[in-house]
Amino acid sequence: MSTKQINIIKIGGNVIDNPDTLAQFLTDFAQVKGLKILVHGGGKLATKMAEGLHIPQQMIDGKRITDAETLKIATMVYAGYINKNMVAQLQKSGCNAIGLSGADGNAIQTVKRPTEPIDFGFVGDMTEKSINTEFIEILLNNALVPVFCAITHDANGQLLNTNADTIAQSLAVSLSEKYDVNLIYSFEKKGVLINLEDDNSFIPEINYDYFLELKEKGIINKGMLPKLQNAFTAIEKGVRNVFIIKEDAILSLLNKNSYEGTRITNGTT
Amino acid sequence: MSTKQINIIKIGGNVIDNPDTLAQFLTDFAQVKGLKILVHGGGKLATKMAEGLHIPQQMIDGKRITDAETLKIATMVYAGYINKNMVAQLQKSGCNAIGLSGADGNAIQTVKRPTEPIDFGFVGDMTEKSINTEFIEILLNNALVPVFCAITHDANGQLLNTNADTIAQSLAVSLSEKYDVNLIYSFEKKGVLINLEDDNSFIPEINYDYFLELKEKGIINKGMLPKLQNAFTAIEKGVRNVFIIKEDAILSLLNKNSYEGTRITNGTT
Repeated sequence: MSTKQINIIKIGGNVIDNPDTLAQFLTDFAQVKGLKILVHGGGKLATKMAEGLHIPQQMIDGKRITDAETLKIATMVYAGYINKNMVAQLQKSGCNAIGLSGADGNAIQTVKRPTEPIDFGFVGDMTEKSINTEFIEILLNNALVPVFCAITHDANGQLLNTNADTIAQSLAVSLSEKYDVNLIYSFEKKGVLINLEDDNSFIPEINYDYFLELKEKGIINKGMLPKLQNAFTAIEKGVRNVFIIKEDAILSLLNKNSYEGTRITNGTT
Repeated sequence: MSTKQINIIKIGGNVIDNPDTLAQFLTDFAQVKGLKILVHGGGKLATKMAEGLHIPQQMIDGKRITDAETLKIATMVYAGYINKNMVAQLQKSGCNAIGLSGADGNAIQTVKRPTEPIDFGFVGDMTEKSINTEFIEILLNNALVPVFCAITHDANGQLLNTNADTIAQSLAVSLSEKYDVNLIYSFEKKGVLINLEDDNSFIPEINYDYFLELKEKGIINKGMLPKLQNAFTAIEKGVRNVFIIKEDAILSLLNKNSYEGTRITNGTT
């Protein structure tokens, strides 16, 4: 008996900020065959909303602090506006999407990050038990397509802001116990780039040793580091395939097995 | 074989505006036995958000016009902030809630209201086919508790603002084909009042003839008229019981069959 396959696709914030690109991505996503899950980040709307409402955004080391007002806006924008509009567009394309935060069906339960050394505020970190696979399987078994935003909960009434890349990785790892999982990080670039200015400088395959080498040389930019770390963790923990590709490449990759982009391998150089 | 019972409870906006009252209501709701669905309105947060963002609110005959910016805020506040915080609080109380807009799982498909005689903007009206009972039954059969906000979709990619009282009524009517349905409109008053200033002037039972009489005499206030019309429609179309009660009375009513408030009857005077 072959294991069932599932595609878990994370879409980046820069794609969400461009309505035409997002619409095309969602049309493509609707056509991806088989079981699938979408995870989305935030984009710039939350920052714009905060500015409009004159809520100051505190940053430490380039990371936003999620104070109570910022969490409120994140919940409105991610779980409300972005998530529901994506679901409505997917429904239009015949994809039976269901939008979820981690509180819904207790899908993703996280732990508030410790306040030392830096208090990041209402940020939830994933644990090995965060993902409620039983609930997700109920949806998948009924031909529903989960669409997760990056808001989770602590099961004690508190919503928490959580990194969307990490949610996608945890979903992939947890579901890999029962499924053959493809984890796809899709965003506005063609893959992991050697030269950020040249979209064609993507690395077709990257293993952990090569990653460490590039990291040491300072070739991989700061935003890509945690994404790649998530990718290698996923491979280590049983996810079948991990790709980092442009948002317009998911259909070629998943339905035609042909693409340009970066594949994560766990082989040695 | 006796038909399964389900309680559909709509909670009004004034309750949502008071965090302590809302928290107590949700604690009570979590303890309601058996199958249940929660439907919630909006409250004043959307208006406050619109003011904060300097988005003018257009009103005609006391009704808000849902232009594109107003719909955006309604989606953020109703489907995002209010819905997800309610779900998180219910999860804390051991109630396996799942927050939904009408787009999720294509749960509620509405039709954009005609622009004549008045263009109310992005408002969706319910039809007899609006409710996707098959989807809702999947959730109920898996011990999930649907929590609906008042945002629906047209299945063509457009989200629409929809009256929460009417959503509750349509859910009740559609589910009454398979279930014994109790529909409960819970809000900040003890029931349908003869004298709005006196909370103890509630009418214990009201039938359609009495309703028409009170309406003719101008005793029933404007806000109550559509709620009562929804209530009588529900009874006519097969809903077993309809109550209009204070938000702190749901546990006595549903678990102890004892309450103060208004019961809708379809008998003649």
